[in-house]
Amino acid sequence: MLNTRLSGIIPPIVTPLLTHDELDREGLERLLTRVIDAGCSGVFILGSTGEAPALSSRLRLEMIQATAEIVRGKVTLLVGITDSSVEEAIQLGSAAIDAKADALVTSSPFYFRLSQSDLLRHAEMLTRELSIPLFLYNMPGLTKLVYEPDTVAKASEIAGIAGFKDSSGDLIYLQRVLRLVRGKPNFSVFIGPEELLAHAVLMGADGGVNGGANLFPELYVALFRAAKERRIDDLQDLERQVLELSEAIYRVGDPSTSYLRGLKAALSLQNICSDLPAAPMVPLSVEERAGIERWLTRQSA
Amino acid sequence: MLNTRLSGIIPPIVTPLLTHDELDREGLERLLTRVIDAGCSGVFILGSTGEAPALSSRLRLEMIQATAEIVRGKVTLLVGITDSSVEEAIQLGSAAIDAKADALVTSSPFYFRLSQSDLLRHAEMLTRELSIPLFLYNMPGLTKLVYEPDTVAKASEIAGIAGFKDSSGDLIYLQRVLRLVRGKPNFSVFIGPEELLAHAVLMGADGGVNGGANLFPELYVALFRAAKERRIDDLQDLERQVLELSEAIYRVGDPSTSYLRGLKAALSLQNICSDLPAAPMVPLSVEERAGIERWLTRQSA
Amino acid sequence: MLNTRLSGIIPPIVTPLLTHDELDREGLERLLTRVIDAGCSGVFILGSTGEAPALSSRLRLEMIQATAEIVRGKVTLLVGITDSSVEEAIQLGSAAIDAKADALVTSSPFYFRLSQSDLLRHAEMLTRELSIPLFLYNMPGLTKLVYEPDTVAKASEIAGIAGFKDSSGDLIYLQRVLRLVRGKPNFSVFIGPEELLAHAVLMGADGGVNGGANLFPELYVALFRAAKERRIDDLQDLERQVLELSEAIYRVGDPSTSYLRGLKAALSLQNICSDLPAAPMVPLSVEERAGIERWLTRQSA
Amino acid sequence: MLNTRLSGIIPPIVTPLLTHDELDREGLERLLTRVIDAGCSGVFILGSTGEAPALSSRLRLEMIQATAEIVRGKVTLLVGITDSSVEEAIQLGSAAIDAKADALVTSSPFYFRLSQSDLLRHAEMLTRELSIPLFLYNMPGLTKLVYEPDTVAKASEIAGIAGFKDSSGDLIYLQRVLRLVRGKPNFSVFIGPEELLAHAVLMGADGGVNGGANLFPELYVALFRAAKERRIDDLQDLERQVLELSEAIYRVGDPSTSYLRGLKAALSLQNICSDLPAAPMVPLSVEERAGIERWLTRQSA
Repeated sequence: MLNTRLSGIIPPIVTPLLTHDELDREGLERLLTRVIDAGCSGVFILGSTGEAPALSSRLRLEMIQATAEIVRGKVTLLVGITDSSVEEAIQLGSAAIDAKADALVTSSPFYFRLSQSDLLRHAEMLTRELSIPLFLYNMPGLTKLVYEPDTVAKASEIAGIAGFKDSSGDLIYLQRVLRLVRGKPNFSVFIGPEELLAHAVLMGADGGVNGGANLFPELYVALFRAAKERRIDDLQDLERQVLELSEAIYRVGDPSTSYLRGLKAALSLQNICSDLPAAPMVPLSVEERAGIERWLTRQSA
Repeated sequence: MLNTRLSGIIPPIVTPLLTHDELDREGLERLLTRVIDAGCSGVFILGSTGEAPALSSRLRLEMIQATAEIVRGKVTLLVGITDSSVEEAIQLGSAAIDAKADALVTSSPFYFRLSQSDLLRHAEMLTRELSIPLFLYNMPGLTKLVYEPDTVAKASEIAGIAGFKDSSGDLIYLQRVLRLVRGKPNFSVFIGPEELLAHAVLMGADGGVNGGANLFPELYVALFRAAKERRIDDLQDLERQVLELSEAIYRVGDPSTSYLRGLKAALSLQNICSDLPAAPMVPLSVEERAGIERWLTRQSA
Repeated sequence: MLNTRLSGIIPPIVTPLLTHDELDREGLERLLTRVIDAGCSGVFILGSTGEAPALSSRLRLEMIQATAEIVRGKVTLLVGITDSSVEEAIQLGSAAIDAKADALVTSSPFYFRLSQSDLLRHAEMLTRELSIPLFLYNMPGLTKLVYEPDTVAKASEIAGIAGFKDSSGDLIYLQRVLRLVRGKPNFSVFIGPEELLAHAVLMGADGGVNGGANLFPELYVALFRAAKERRIDDLQDLERQVLELSEAIYRVGDPSTSYLRGLKAALSLQNICSDLPAAPMVPLSVEERAGIERWLTRQSA
Repeated sequence: MLNTRLSGIIPPIVTPLLTHDELDREGLERLLTRVIDAGCSGVFILGSTGEAPALSSRLRLEMIQATAEIVRGKVTLLVGITDSSVEEAIQLGSAAIDAKADALVTSSPFYFRLSQSDLLRHAEMLTRELSIPLFLYNMPGLTKLVYEPDTVAKASEIAGIAGFKDSSGDLIYLQRVLRLVRGKPNFSVFIGPEELLAHAVLMGADGGVNGGANLFPELYVALFRAAKERRIDDLQDLERQVLELSEAIYRVGDPSTSYLRGLKAALSLQNICSDLPAAPMVPLSVEERAGIERWLTRQSA
């Protein structure tokens, strides 16, 4: 169980699939090993990048157990329990605790248009039932709901709430949140979109949960450190690389799901795992994949 | 299993709860009995009004079995299997088939921003695995995704897809869909928002899946018939009553979930079932509930 | 000046252009003559279909004068004065009064995100300065602002506010408005989207301000009468024709402005006026235009 | 006329009003004098903060002339010509040229939902008619339209387009734009939201057009310099002050227009100019104003 303040790069691990309900365990091992070796401070499974809401409960449990066995305490293990049902989230959280996860992560339930007091009550229900630290995860683009800064501040007072991850892409929002929770020694704040990692750290965030760290974990670790150590030339150079990757891999084909499908295509081209996304999505087309291949080849040249 | 074209009023049944994971079976029986006695042609459980995405899988299975036992073939039984995971939807659908449901209903998966071809593939995956008729359910306000009219037309060609329910509230959209599927003898179209029921029927829709029919099923059956039989004076009079109900019950308190919480409050005031909504929502406040009580009293006076 | 309750079809007249700042006066005369001869009860110039916000003040004044000369009291003349500046709207309204317009029409100012009390104050400022009846025009898709039903009800109490036009496309909204203003003898309500004309009339609306009436005014007059006289078979048949027109002409090419550009292309193919839209828009492409031509030819065959 | 690359702080000057169509010329002089004395490199009038779309054409011309007389070449003068009509924008631009403005600024027309090629054509039409440098201004929250990064890149190739201002609040978007226009020696990029100023500068932007610089110009000049000189401790300290101001002044009362009304309230409390916003808006309430007064008093203590 987590008992220090988290910081650094914690990749939101993709869920490697053999078929739509079958885990690619070998791919997962290659992926986790690389990420851990690169200096990431933790791994976060079953988030949006992990496609968790599209997976069966059974597969999510398998993913928790497989990851726990591979990670074995080498780094912090965070497990996403986001679900449209509170009860299902509690069951998933219990399984994660049994598997020795260090902390849990939840976004808001994502079907109904809940109020801010519903969101707070949701966090309280989960912390009451689940005995390890819980992070809240702001992902309005997919959940339709935003944790207002005041709600984050109130949540940070709940025993058991250990931090916050923001994937809104809105740095004014993140500043407003940081202003309210700054100074709480046991509450850490992470940023999702990797293009904003360095600036969030300069604003006082503790680190990043960045999808690209599945692919090039060293790059994100280096960018985090450059920001932390205020090496601005390095920061600008590394940030440019992050943006290049983002343009080359996350914006290929249908824009609605190109981030996920591009990331898995690139991992497959690196021989890490299959490019199969969760159903009903399909891999990038041959042409789209070839474009990513050319870009990756140029990078390693 | 459904083998005729559906029509008429099919209430989207609320899920009566004792606690957040405990079914109010007696309440359910009272509710279903009343609805069936009033002349509804079917019941649809585990839709949005049934709060299905917020319920545990276990409770959803219990709801299917309890409803099947109570309904016992008296009217058509439709079961919602909407889930963010295709695999979970298939498992729910199999349970519904085992319980002798007549048809299944699904909206799109509701976490990722899927493409139209993803939506079509989703429908195909479900019909391949599940052997009874499947209705598609357009609910963009909650799923963030719309079935484009062309997608509905393509889906109507898939064996196993038996119809479409639209809860967009957009009658131009519904007209565009009806224009494309008109003339398919085994494809029926229903409307969700009850304020639009009569006009959808005049446009050619087959009936309504209207939340208020939990409360006053006769009113909706009468409105459907007035529209079907083109009794415009009656239609206008009944439509006015529907709008009054909608203003009095669905727009009380926090607007985001007032429809669900108002409907359950009114059912509780009619001694049908508890007013507890699915977690993390809470019942209306005492004052809000008192306002609904006053309105209901005036109606019965 | 208008002194009876308005009803029937009042086409939102397109502004025929020779160049981006030059009125096609002959085209305007052909257009107005046809519309008046077809039995429309009025004409509404300088609305959204009239592209007014994209025209210079000078051209708007010319359009008012030219229309007033051609119409000469044969039908009711409504003039749009919508502007992002209240002062500019007042100046335009004064010019319309000088030209003997019967009534004015305004949507909300459309740059800032104003509150409901701002919208009400806006209506009051205009009626205080302008001595002829004023209609409010709800067009949230372009103005970003909606007149809440309560705001419409309050506005209907202001001396000088004579009616309301709704182009939201949301018939639940329209019903809620009608419920609040029903029974006010001097307040009329019109619907914008022509696909919904008949149903709005069945709900109690007084008529339609429908773009397609520039092209086929008889069709809309006939549909209005069928709804008014409750001839449902005729209504359904005519409504189907309206939908066909809408699919064939308003959904060609770039969807954002296809309505305007398609309508002007069709008018040009009927030799009424030029197909030039207001700057910076351009006419449909040759291929897009040819598709409309084929459809029009089939109609007249 | 501008012939060097712009940088630094260029406040978007509020338009001080005595009545809704009367300029507060003395207030304007006090405001401009303070801003110029504080080291701002230019002033930008008739932008969103200048409430230009809500002002009459006459008042906009008066504002141009009054500002030009007061500024008299001491700093760069940029004039906003944003209008829903291209022709009106051209007339305004010609007047600005006559008054010796250094550059013009335009956002997209803001009524119709234009395409990217319409936006590019709009920029070309303006540069063809207006002989001084033109900046494009991305303000999707109010115009509903975004200049896609590719469109900005294409626009940067048009002779006469001298730069870009982004008020989207989306730093990923800004990075994507900067990546495409980096290296063009005569194309400068500015950021609107002041909370993001320092980070935009670290990303390569040339400066800020920040509303708060009407109130505390020295603060924004200092923050710009800290970012430019990479003094991160100073940057963090000053950024915190900017955020405090933003929370205290821009988020008081009705959120839709609280930025404008709060800014004018604070300027009035500083005895710079009246707190009257453009019609149909009204000043903050007495209580809301008192809250801002208390905050300002604490700052100067």
